[in-house]
Amino acid sequence: MAAPMSIMNTVKWISKSLKISRLQVSCGSLLPVRYSSAVGSSKSLVYEKYGDPVKVVKLEQRPLPEVDDDSVLVKMIASPVNPSDINSIQGIYPIKPAFPAVAGFEGVGEIQEVGSNVKDLTPGERVIFQGSVTGTWCSHLVCPANQVMVVPEGTPPLIAATVKVNACTAYRMLADFENLVEGDTVVQNAANSGAGQALIQIAAARGLKTINIVRDRPDLQELTDYLHGLGATVVTTEGDLRKGASSLLKDLPKPKLAVNAVGGKSIIALVKQIQHGGTIVTYGGMSKQPVMVPTGSLIFDDLKFKGYWMSRWHQENAGSEEARQMFDQLCRWGGTGQLRAPQHRLVDIDNYGSALEKALGEYSTEKQILTFGS
Amino acid sequence: MAAPMSIMNTVKWISKSLKISRLQVSCGSLLPVRYSSAVGSSKSLVYEKYGDPVKVVKLEQRPLPEVDDDSVLVKMIASPVNPSDINSIQGIYPIKPAFPAVAGFEGVGEIQEVGSNVKDLTPGERVIFQGSVTGTWCSHLVCPANQVMVVPEGTPPLIAATVKVNACTAYRMLADFENLVEGDTVVQNAANSGAGQALIQIAAARGLKTINIVRDRPDLQELTDYLHGLGATVVTTEGDLRKGASSLLKDLPKPKLAVNAVGGKSIIALVKQIQHGGTIVTYGGMSKQPVMVPTGSLIFDDLKFKGYWMSRWHQENAGSEEARQMFDQLCRWGGTGQLRAPQHRLVDIDNYGSALEKALGEYSTEKQILTFGS
Repeated sequence: MAAPMSIMNTVKWISKSLKISRLQVSCGSLLPVRYSSAVGSSKSLVYEKYGDPVKVVKLEQRPLPEVDDDSVLVKMIASPVNPSDINSIQGIYPIKPAFPAVAGFEGVGEIQEVGSNVKDLTPGERVIFQGSVTGTWCSHLVCPANQVMVVPEGTPPLIAATVKVNACTAYRMLADFENLVEGDTVVQNAANSGAGQALIQIAAARGLKTINIVRDRPDLQELTDYLHGLGATVVTTEGDLRKGASSLLKDLPKPKLAVNAVGGKSIIALVKQIQHGGTIVTYGGMSKQPVMVPTGSLIFDDLKFKGYWMSRWHQENAGSEEARQMFDQLCRWGGTGQLRAPQHRLVDIDNYGSALEKALGEYSTEKQILTFGS
Repeated sequence: MAAPMSIMNTVKWISKSLKISRLQVSCGSLLPVRYSSAVGSSKSLVYEKYGDPVKVVKLEQRPLPEVDDDSVLVKMIASPVNPSDINSIQGIYPIKPAFPAVAGFEGVGEIQEVGSNVKDLTPGERVIFQGSVTGTWCSHLVCPANQVMVVPEGTPPLIAATVKVNACTAYRMLADFENLVEGDTVVQNAANSGAGQALIQIAAARGLKTINIVRDRPDLQELTDYLHGLGATVVTTEGDLRKGASSLLKDLPKPKLAVNAVGGKSIIALVKQIQHGGTIVTYGGMSKQPVMVPTGSLIFDDLKFKGYWMSRWHQENAGSEEARQMFDQLCRWGGTGQLRAPQHRLVDIDNYGSALEKALGEYSTEKQILTFGS
């Protein structure tokens, strides 16, 4: 997840080579089913072919399958519109749904009913979804009990709704590539993305400093203030860095880690900041350009370029102790206010078209979060 | 060494950030010196400023410093013209000489005289140079005894002359990035480069298979036959791969390792061959373009892009057991004929201009190797 937008040319062979199995939750079914005793159907955002999300996504009332012995019925509370959702609907994401498909990779809901074998979940508990669950843009869903994880008490619902994609991506990129200790610096571009905002806060909670590169824009000062408010050490633009804003950076240790969600020539700004031997991790490609790596940065500066895909991690680590620890830590930071939900706009599922349009806008800094009525 | 040609834009900041100390051997000196008792001066290829090698390199007779207690006098036998030499003279290489500089990063010579403290070297022994020695394009040189390494008996002189840059680069790229075992496959571009030819042979000696991509050219069949003769499993072009030459590859395991000396869009051909999670190592940039990494190959296919610079390895490992083992193994393969010197043309130092012109030619497949008279 935490999706790149620039994968048109490569996704064909990638999707062939990937063997990602996934569990699709059932937000209703087109097959004849016994209806759930509690809720007969689910209001769902469905697409039957790839294309422009505004055009291909439809709101449908779909029958819900019965809650079997090992399943749970979840009433959804909130589910965000992430770039990976958009790319998935556009057909440029390696996880390919069976059609008709319900969109949505994450969200928070409340258990409404549990199967007879389910002993560790209780109606009323808030849950998020583990592994590679898809299909969260719906009012109700039925899924295997082992695919949900109870949200710790005190976790703000919008943290729970958005933790799995952006916050987990940021958490793991700060954990899995370089051994970062208090006082170390990380540099990132697209710093105002959902993952970027999470990275600033997680870094601050860990005592790491961040250099945050954003695109120049009309409301730059406002954005800069907002990111400083999240704990950003430095907020700057590529243009300012070229003009010599490096005075801002002179007291910071050179970063061991750079985080890239843009690609193209933007990589140069990261390469210029990072220390010899450091790692540049790519989790997105908003420029729709390949990552243009200066040859000399590989050979002479010994930089390592790697990628990070949250879906793979979730799939490989679903149910693990490490996953549990990560979710608990992120939820704790949510509870203390050290991790805030990204800037957002709540949109009822009935107005989904507006959410999709906003999410597709070029300078969208607000995360669109779908809600599902009372 | 094993130099990229495309580093104009990045070398400035890289050379600032690199702190590579080096030992320059003395092919004569501009300072007043006591002349060596055995040889008064050295015929040397000298440059006093960066520029077109054909224009700035001059042949000079330079006085030799005296052989002090810890030094040796070496009469050079052969020294190749490598891309790193060319780049160094052009001023686009991170190792910056003090002017006037004698060019040349490697070669083989014969000990002619040893200092009074030197107990483990004897006149008549053949030696190559350890660490970051520079200045081998000369008839005689004086250097510290601990900077030379005796060449094992039975090693062909042109193997010794060319082992340190190309063969060592190929050896280490096959050793240091992926755990390759007999039967594994490696894919490389610029397969007819000096390092490429060495890689084919070292891989074959280790029981590894190689997919070798070369540029289309008038003498393609001849080159293909030559590389097959070295032990190449498959020789192909990017064009043929696009047209579906992949039938050639169907019985080969997908490569864990790809080796790149071209960069630009050529990287796509490597990315398409390599297996999920594999490593693409860059040691050169003949296209003079950045390495254009598809975003999806980083995120979804989990590829790792790294660089390799032989000079750094030599500097960090000079005198180590690992260096000795590598040289011994390469020389043994040289002795058995499993490692042959690259296609080459021997050029007496007096005709150095012709060697430089040929080395600068676009389709130069012959390594120019300087010799130093009788």
